[in-house]
Amino acid sequence: MAKELKNLTKRSENYSQWYNELVVKADLAEQSDVRGCMVIKPYGYAIWEKIQQELDKKFKETGVQNVYFPLLIPKSFLSKEAEHVEGFAKECAVVTHYRLKANEDGDGVVVDPAAKLEEELIIRPTSETTIWNTYRKWIHSWRDLPVLCNQWCNVMRWEMRTRLFLRTSEFLWQEGHTAHATREEAEERTKQMIHVYADFVENYMAIPLVVGVKSATERFAGALDTYTIEAMMQDGKALQSGTSHFLGQNFGKAFNVQFVDKENKLDYAWATSWGVSTRLMGALVMTHSDDNGLVLPPNLAPIQVVIVPIYKGDEKAIFDEKLGALADRLRKMGVSVKYDNADNKRPGFKFADYELKGVPVRLVMGGNDLKNGTIEVMRRDTLEKETRDFEGIEEYVKQLLDEIQKNIFKKAKDYLDSHIYECNDYEDFKKRIVDGGFFLCPWDGTAETEAKIKEETQATVRCIPFGYDQSNPGTDMVSGKPATCKAIIARSY
Amino acid sequence: MAKELKNLTKRSENYSQWYNELVVKADLAEQSDVRGCMVIKPYGYAIWEKIQQELDKKFKETGVQNVYFPLLIPKSFLSKEAEHVEGFAKECAVVTHYRLKANEDGDGVVVDPAAKLEEELIIRPTSETTIWNTYRKWIHSWRDLPVLCNQWCNVMRWEMRTRLFLRTSEFLWQEGHTAHATREEAEERTKQMIHVYADFVENYMAIPLVVGVKSATERFAGALDTYTIEAMMQDGKALQSGTSHFLGQNFGKAFNVQFVDKENKLDYAWATSWGVSTRLMGALVMTHSDDNGLVLPPNLAPIQVVIVPIYKGDEKAIFDEKLGALADRLRKMGVSVKYDNADNKRPGFKFADYELKGVPVRLVMGGNDLKNGTIEVMRRDTLEKETRDFEGIEEYVKQLLDEIQKNIFKKAKDYLDSHIYECNDYEDFKKRIVDGGFFLCPWDGTAETEAKIKEETQATVRCIPFGYDQSNPGTDMVSGKPATCKAIIARSY
Repeated sequence: MAKELKNLTKRSENYSQWYNELVVKADLAEQSDVRGCMVIKPYGYAIWEKIQQELDKKFKETGVQNVYFPLLIPKSFLSKEAEHVEGFAKECAVVTHYRLKANEDGDGVVVDPAAKLEEELIIRPTSETTIWNTYRKWIHSWRDLPVLCNQWCNVMRWEMRTRLFLRTSEFLWQEGHTAHATREEAEERTKQMIHVYADFVENYMAIPLVVGVKSATERFAGALDTYTIEAMMQDGKALQSGTSHFLGQNFGKAFNVQFVDKENKLDYAWATSWGVSTRLMGALVMTHSDDNGLVLPPNLAPIQVVIVPIYKGDEKAIFDEKLGALADRLRKMGVSVKYDNADNKRPGFKFADYELKGVPVRLVMGGNDLKNGTIEVMRRDTLEKETRDFEGIEEYVKQLLDEIQKNIFKKAKDYLDSHIYECNDYEDFKKRIVDGGFFLCPWDGTAETEAKIKEETQATVRCIPFGYDQSNPGTDMVSGKPATCKAIIARSY
Repeated sequence: MAKELKNLTKRSENYSQWYNELVVKADLAEQSDVRGCMVIKPYGYAIWEKIQQELDKKFKETGVQNVYFPLLIPKSFLSKEAEHVEGFAKECAVVTHYRLKANEDGDGVVVDPAAKLEEELIIRPTSETTIWNTYRKWIHSWRDLPVLCNQWCNVMRWEMRTRLFLRTSEFLWQEGHTAHATREEAEERTKQMIHVYADFVENYMAIPLVVGVKSATERFAGALDTYTIEAMMQDGKALQSGTSHFLGQNFGKAFNVQFVDKENKLDYAWATSWGVSTRLMGALVMTHSDDNGLVLPPNLAPIQVVIVPIYKGDEKAIFDEKLGALADRLRKMGVSVKYDNADNKRPGFKFADYELKGVPVRLVMGGNDLKNGTIEVMRRDTLEKETRDFEGIEEYVKQLLDEIQKNIFKKAKDYLDSHIYECNDYEDFKKRIVDGGFFLCPWDGTAETEAKIKEETQATVRCIPFGYDQSNPGTDMVSGKPATCKAIIARSY
């Protein structure tokens, strides 16, 4: 077994360490020498590209167009929306100078004090302010609406404790920013986008979700409503995987974006914003993977099928011809294939490496298979092996990829469903929350109760979930007051 | 005629103003409120996305993989390669703090002096330093080579005089960074990539080029050789449109990237880097467009064909059915079509607007066409109109798009070829350079001559071009010394 693999910590020993090691060993990403910023490596970036392509297509199907707005935001813009600046000021990277000059000692460069900016510039933590400052120039009449823009870019939030993909100072994301003529239309867009995310994350990434609305405490800084998709990691903790915000007229007013409506009256434009980030890569790892390494849904796997021959010296040409042709047939069917006939690595090393990398299907052919007209098929999700007829194996593999996509979703969905607990008793909650899981609890809707739960258990209100009966929520388990809803409460990343 | 169009300055009046206006009026981009940084609008970004997609495919065909490295570079990294820091220090945006705090007056935020970074961070002007710092961890043996990475990202160079797309403080680009075991392999990759660019820019963007190698003065900071593609704008000035650099072992040594070669000896890795940017958008506009607006090559046009009906009130349904079906047939053939039956704009306004936006083919159908079974076809490149049978028009349009792609390349190629002048007389050169054009002149290869030409004529050595007979260069037209080559000398953007 390969050295890298043998060294991977088991999930049961230390889940957090398992994650940190796996991200690096599977060549997804690594720490850079800039605090909290990561290098996304080719294998990890190939997965991110697949996420981007599919989401981008879905956005465009709803009429969204891509744009690019500047990286730097004047400090004064941030201050225009009071809650927004409150939310982001503590984690802003600030540009103060625009030139370096040679050090007088002649060994390197120093900041040139003569090149100080009149107004400091902030590296965008999110772009509502700069985008709404521009929307003022674009929007004058109801005929100019809606404006439906999105950008794929980098953002920066100076985090004190960082982890690859989950929380990094710089991360990649998309941020959608829409402007509408009516409140109803903006609210509808907010919900539409959370459902676009949910559909993508469940059906493409095979990650089952709880979808719902955030509590006031957990809302985006400047939003009237924040919708969220919450995934459950294998340790029972929640990972917020995407959010969509109804921003009301807050940014329209802050940046004076007024338009003439159909009745010829002036009104402020209504806003939404919505985003997902490279955090999804973390969700992907912690939903499906196991002690042998990554488990990737076929939809996102850079290599869906690897074919490995086991040959003696003079047999190579026979295998190359037979398996090279198989690889071509699979490629013609739209399957991404790697034929690995490299002779500088032992088959055992290759097997462990492809398991570590989460390649969904492995095909192995040895001398006996050649004789018998068979091939060995291993599926990564269950690690089950079977020997099948070589003839027609491509149709079987194609169908197996669909089956794997469905199976890993089902497995994760069963895990999620079996770890959502109805709970009305705070003492019981406190005992059980240490083992993880989502607790569906009656909540009085107050920030006080929320704060108490957080302080005593490190758990937070993740959302008020859709799809659960909210008609008779009962009594708040902490305050004993009448509950206004049932909320999902959990520890989270 | 539409108001926007009437107001477009003519090229003959003021070429520079024509460009600035057209970029804004055609909805490609606009200035932001951050000095020198632009907003790329949906229509402009859609063109950039097409550039990205095609180039990305070409890179991957040569084995390149995408990655992502951090935005911020520690100041000390820049200093490690002496020429590199010399080249970029004067235009670096510097991050010095990581937090804002509430102003004591309670009206806004100020930089928190307690949150000063120990070492300042630079927003990447280019990523050689940060990438080679990481390559040290990736490269140990010849087996780890080559490393072929590329990233699509934003970079920042604090420019004092900026123009949309041509020179902006922040711009989007791709930067490829490869590491090799031998000098020969790195040099080959450097040339390979300039040819990938040339092939793309000529055959996809329809922009003819001169390809060559830069003089020592004009090399990338830290390169041993810089190859370039130079395009000629309609005013006869050169626009450097892409470069590929052979970096030797400079970065390998600066960042101590050593590997064990096949002979079991330690050596430093050999480097290349290569990039094109949103500057290509400027080249696109200034190569093909005219006094009516943009002219886009069909390969890059977000809308390739627009269909406009001219109907009276009750005829709308008939046109919608007939032309909607035509649009569908064209889409099935892979053509991107807009069917514009909006009734809140007059046909004349629509025509001017689509001309301004450079839509390659316009189809118009009115009452008479309906009766006669015909349709009017206008091609944007020549503005020629013809009336043709409606039956089978989609095949004609498809073939017309190919014809337009070829024609606008041919037109630009004829312009380029007829504005490259052999010139051996400096007095003659000085008279003629004011009218633009590329001058192929014998050059003694010295920086002194180069500097004198630049000072006296604002022209620079653009490159020593490939594809010209260099065997007998003659006598330098300025110094009278023996020439070492014939160089392309021109004014440039």
